[in-house]
Amino acid sequence: MISIVLLGYGNVGMNLCHAFSHHDTLTVTVYNRSAIKKNSRINGVSYIDDIQELPRADVYIIAISDDSIGRFSEELPLDNQLVVHTSGAVDMEVLSNKNRRGIFYPLQTFSELRTPPFKEIPICIEAENKADQTLLESLGHCISDNVYEISSLERQKIHIAAVFVNNFTNHMYQIAEDYLQQQQLEFNLLKPLIRETSEKIQHVSPTQMQTGPAVRNDEMTLQKHYDLLKDSPYQKLYKTLTKSIIETHGKKL
Amino acid sequence: MISIVLLGYGNVGMNLCHAFSHHDTLTVTVYNRSAIKKNSRINGVSYIDDIQELPRADVYIIAISDDSIGRFSEELPLDNQLVVHTSGAVDMEVLSNKNRRGIFYPLQTFSELRTPPFKEIPICIEAENKADQTLLESLGHCISDNVYEISSLERQKIHIAAVFVNNFTNHMYQIAEDYLQQQQLEFNLLKPLIRETSEKIQHVSPTQMQTGPAVRNDEMTLQKHYDLLKDSPYQKLYKTLTKSIIETHGKKL
Repeated sequence: MISIVLLGYGNVGMNLCHAFSHHDTLTVTVYNRSAIKKNSRINGVSYIDDIQELPRADVYIIAISDDSIGRFSEELPLDNQLVVHTSGAVDMEVLSNKNRRGIFYPLQTFSELRTPPFKEIPICIEAENKADQTLLESLGHCISDNVYEISSLERQKIHIAAVFVNNFTNHMYQIAEDYLQQQQLEFNLLKPLIRETSEKIQHVSPTQMQTGPAVRNDEMTLQKHYDLLKDSPYQKLYKTLTKSIIETHGKKL
Repeated sequence: MISIVLLGYGNVGMNLCHAFSHHDTLTVTVYNRSAIKKNSRINGVSYIDDIQELPRADVYIIAISDDSIGRFSEELPLDNQLVVHTSGAVDMEVLSNKNRRGIFYPLQTFSELRTPPFKEIPICIEAENKADQTLLESLGHCISDNVYEISSLERQKIHIAAVFVNNFTNHMYQIAEDYLQQQQLEFNLLKPLIRETSEKIQHVSPTQMQTGPAVRNDEMTLQKHYDLLKDSPYQKLYKTLTKSIIETHGKKL
């Protein structure tokens, strides 16, 4: 049995809670500053909203916003316990050193509306000592097939790459939606293409999958697109990204 | 019955051929300059490699590279037939006016290795006269649930948006892969995240789905990422895209 206290019940906390709760060998208590509504509660999970009532547990998992982690960990009424956070961007050392520190970072984007298949999600773990490392590893394997021992520096590099494929990619979607709306055209038209673009690289390298006017250096089409985007706020970005593709693939030739 | 001649057997031609061949009311002949290997042939489809042997058909679909469409359509031994192309970027007027012209543009990215579910793919059609328009519409509905009458100008605008969500998004994947390789880290780690990022916007607007340090204007994380990317060719693009996200979402507040 591993006993877990989840501190925070935002998108990450709620999704982790969901995954943990399906496992017989785990017990979960959730602490959240404000009381959690009945319809957000999960069967078999205990909920508390008074930090003084924290039960004893094998691991305390902080799942709150990045900039609150440090101070919150200082204020925890705990001593020499295993306290980890779930952020891709925050150093382990940001956690208060009055406890044993660690990381339990699920490399995924979470929202309230969707529960992605947890078994595939990479869990990046880190701990200050071997026993804690082993415990986090066991915990990770309860919910995922992919558990990795990753240093804080490596985790931050992975987080940078994640910004490109998640945050920046979503920005591409948002630009397309905004541009089509301005033209009275439907963003829905692009949804099968968006899905297929992400599926294609699941088995083949994106370097091989690059298509379009930029990688072909198709000047006629590029010029037509520049012209059509003449008054658009997105013309500059179109040019920058086109240049970046041409440079990247030019180098590889 | 609709009889089709497919001119070209690259990724688009082959995928269209596959979709058409599953439909009882369609007959398909494929012309390709070079003979097509036995293992690429589809049962029930006729293959020819001599342009002089083109059979009579209701519609001739040119599926070759953008910059060859014009000249190829001039050289076709046809007169007053319905000749369409499948490109998102090329004007209908590029086709020779010795035939009746049209567009049959499946809005998807195709590769040899994968056959995406055709029923969901938007087919954008256009024709010079009503009867041809109706025929292309019927043909589209044989293979897809989403057939749209789209003008050449609208199609080019959709193509620009497609460049953002397909070509530029794939470039984000490629950058992440390249950066992680340089750091001796696995691109595989990101694949569940990439899939989920594209799934999330199937039902919710990407504007609502924007997350990450840029949209939070989390200066500490941004600075850390700039520092880690100090010697990387991708630092500049990271900054540009971050600025673009901050500007876009700043405006919406």
